Amino acid sequence: MSATLRIKGERLQQRIAQLADVGAIDGGGCARLALSDEDKAGRDLVCDWMRELGLSLTVDAIGNVVGTRAGRVPGAAVMTGSHIDTVRTGGRYDGNLGVLAGLEVIASLNDAGIETERPLAVAFFTNEEGARFAPDMMGSLVFTGELALDEALQTQGIDGSTVAENLARIGYAGTAPTPAAAPHAFVELHVEQGPVLDREGTEIGVVESVQGISWTEIEILGTSNHAGTTPMSLRRDAGWAAGSIISFVRELAQEFGGDQVATVGRIEFFPNLVNVVPNRAVLTVDLRNTDEALLQRAESRLAAHLDALRDAEKVDINTRKLARFAPVPFAPEMTDRIERHALAQGLSTRRMPSGAGHDAQMMAPVCPTAMIFVPSVDGISHNVREYTHPQHIEAGANVLLAVLCELAGATLPAGEPA
Amino acid sequence: MSATLRIKGERLQQRIAQLADVGAIDGGGCARLALSDEDKAGRDLVCDWMRELGLSLTVDAIGNVVGTRAGRVPGAAVMTGSHIDTVRTGGRYDGNLGVLAGLEVIASLNDAGIETERPLAVAFFTNEEGARFAPDMMGSLVFTGELALDEALQTQGIDGSTVAENLARIGYAGTAPTPAAAPHAFVELHVEQGPVLDREGTEIGVVESVQGISWTEIEILGTSNHAGTTPMSLRRDAGWAAGSIISFVRELAQEFGGDQVATVGRIEFFPNLVNVVPNRAVLTVDLRNTDEALLQRAESRLAAHLDALRDAEKVDINTRKLARFAPVPFAPEMTDRIERHALAQGLSTRRMPSGAGHDAQMMAPVCPTAMIFVPSVDGISHNVREYTHPQHIEAGANVLLAVLCELAGATLPAGEPA
Repeated sequence: MSATLRIKGERLQQRIAQLADVGAIDGGGCARLALSDEDKAGRDLVCDWMRELGLSLTVDAIGNVVGTRAGRVPGAAVMTGSHIDTVRTGGRYDGNLGVLAGLEVIASLNDAGIETERPLAVAFFTNEEGARFAPDMMGSLVFTGELALDEALQTQGIDGSTVAENLARIGYAGTAPTPAAAPHAFVELHVEQGPVLDREGTEIGVVESVQGISWTEIEILGTSNHAGTTPMSLRRDAGWAAGSIISFVRELAQEFGGDQVATVGRIEFFPNLVNVVPNRAVLTVDLRNTDEALLQRAESRLAAHLDALRDAEKVDINTRKLARFAPVPFAPEMTDRIERHALAQGLSTRRMPSGAGHDAQMMAPVCPTAMIFVPSVDGISHNVREYTHPQHIEAGANVLLAVLCELAGATLPAGEPA
Repeated sequence: MSATLRIKGERLQQRIAQLADVGAIDGGGCARLALSDEDKAGRDLVCDWMRELGLSLTVDAIGNVVGTRAGRVPGAAVMTGSHIDTVRTGGRYDGNLGVLAGLEVIASLNDAGIETERPLAVAFFTNEEGARFAPDMMGSLVFTGELALDEALQTQGIDGSTVAENLARIGYAGTAPTPAAAPHAFVELHVEQGPVLDREGTEIGVVESVQGISWTEIEILGTSNHAGTTPMSLRRDAGWAAGSIISFVRELAQEFGGDQVATVGRIEFFPNLVNVVPNRAVLTVDLRNTDEALLQRAESRLAAHLDALRDAEKVDINTRKLARFAPVPFAPEMTDRIERHALAQGLSTRRMPSGAGHDAQMMAPVCPTAMIFVPSVDGISHNVREYTHPQHIEAGANVLLAVLCELAGATLPAGEPA
């Protein structure tokens, strides 16, 4: 293949803008909740593009769409892709970029008349966001057999209707089998959704892993008392215990260092009055680490802190796991490949974990997988202000092109100079 | 007067039960919000009792009711009393006890045919609780001239109607002048509404002062970020700052010791999602101390902590004073008198501050004032489970009887043994 084969940044931007017009909301963002009318319109547009590019389409029973470009040899495809559903106040890059950059790679190969040994496929997976139906990453979970199809289909959304009803309604209840045959390899291009690359001025993130996630809801039960008449020594203050947990998890993250992050994002006090010692507090702790052993250690330390609080404040504490995912390591041969091509293209790189969940983490157990990140300005995501500079989008798509060509075995048409 | 003159505990309990039947709610409590139909019914009942006891009634323009028993010499009355309005889920003792014990003192003097030199008066003040109209202690504030009548009358309640409209509706917009002439002295019997006497097994609290109150609402503005993708070092976490304040005020109260109490009773995070670093947190800090200098020092220390947070976490912090009252010291000659009579009656006593606000604190600047506390089981108040044992109610009313008799100059009728 030509050393100078490049995607067309302008064409990719046009597709991003056209897809963003579907379900557009004020400020330049998108609301295309999974399996909504807006999602259907977005799917129809992307499927039209896939057909125009000569891809053969399959739709499976959970609505995942795969467009495949034949290779010279039949067999497992080299796959790229992501999702096109959004949160209610989503940006235009999250997910969409990975799908449309895949189409841009196909268009560039078509333009240059380049064939590949292996088939090349571009997929978009159903309900990655989980904003309407839980769990998130539903499509890729079913695609890889991690979630039973029936269970997924029966899932009720926030409006009470099921995944199955909505798939039928929008015409995306397909017939391709799930779990699907494993691809030869999977590469996903995505915006970082965090501030690291933007702050550093680095162009390409080489994603080595997805952080493990531990979400715990903590309920503290104390005694409601008058804030004026109850001496400090006689209190069982659920609010103070909650504050102690907030302080503790920050100290824990600082002590652990590295990739450890810890967040208390949600809290409620009862009765929530200025002059009443709270008798009940509910808060959530979000712990993430790329190292499962460290994540387990963080969980143990949190549990020990709760035990100490039970003793010190004589409060009752109940915990409930809201989510628990082990860290997902990506294949070193894949991350090495991404890094090598990015550097060869003169781009700056940084190896990093993904702090957010992605469809790629579901593919990692079934085939060699990795991700390419491009910078998000100010790390803003799930927000209409999500933005990635065009030159970074182009750089990411060109790295994707090179990696996919290598994986699929791209061959110049006869007669072209090498 | 007879050394063995005593109130009738049974009769007092009957009045407490009868008044509690007005606006009764499940669990034995009362809902008689100020100037509601239930409050009117309670007022009517107490006024009937006052008339039956031979008291002459006055009602002022804010609805305070004073029933006076003439003395041998005209002049300023020795006054007792409290309030009969309740919070929405109030108990049957808070306020009511002070008014009905006053009536029981009058009934006991009537039974024994005892005259006093000075007039004796029993008052109930409008809207002590502040649960429907702010500020609380409205009636006693207007009675003593601390709050302008017009301002009080124009106050809108939680249902949008004004104090003036409701006074007219229930027929308690009276004509007695405000501010009223200062009483000779004021004594208020009240349940502690805290756990100290109950825990210690002490029968009588000799209230030396009312704690000063400083309520601050604190708004913290940070940056909303993804809890997975944002390294700890790049966060401006409004939730963490809120947690730090909760921990700080507890440490402050422990360091100060003595009567210092500190409470964070109310908190809200925005957007309040498990996986989003909060960009905004609003919480309240309630600081109380009997010593104004210490209370000011606690406020300064809190302000310094907020400054440190602004620097450390790069958050913006806005504060708003929700309430600020200086501590109110009671007259030593009054507290000494209460203590002396309690001990003479063989009761155990403890000198203590009041952590809650009371009408007595408004009277303190205009006449010698003090309060008598009786134990609240488990310190529970503003709750249908509020309870005080009958023997403690009787003990408190007997101390009130002795103190009022001494202040008013009680004289046995001719022919009775001394």
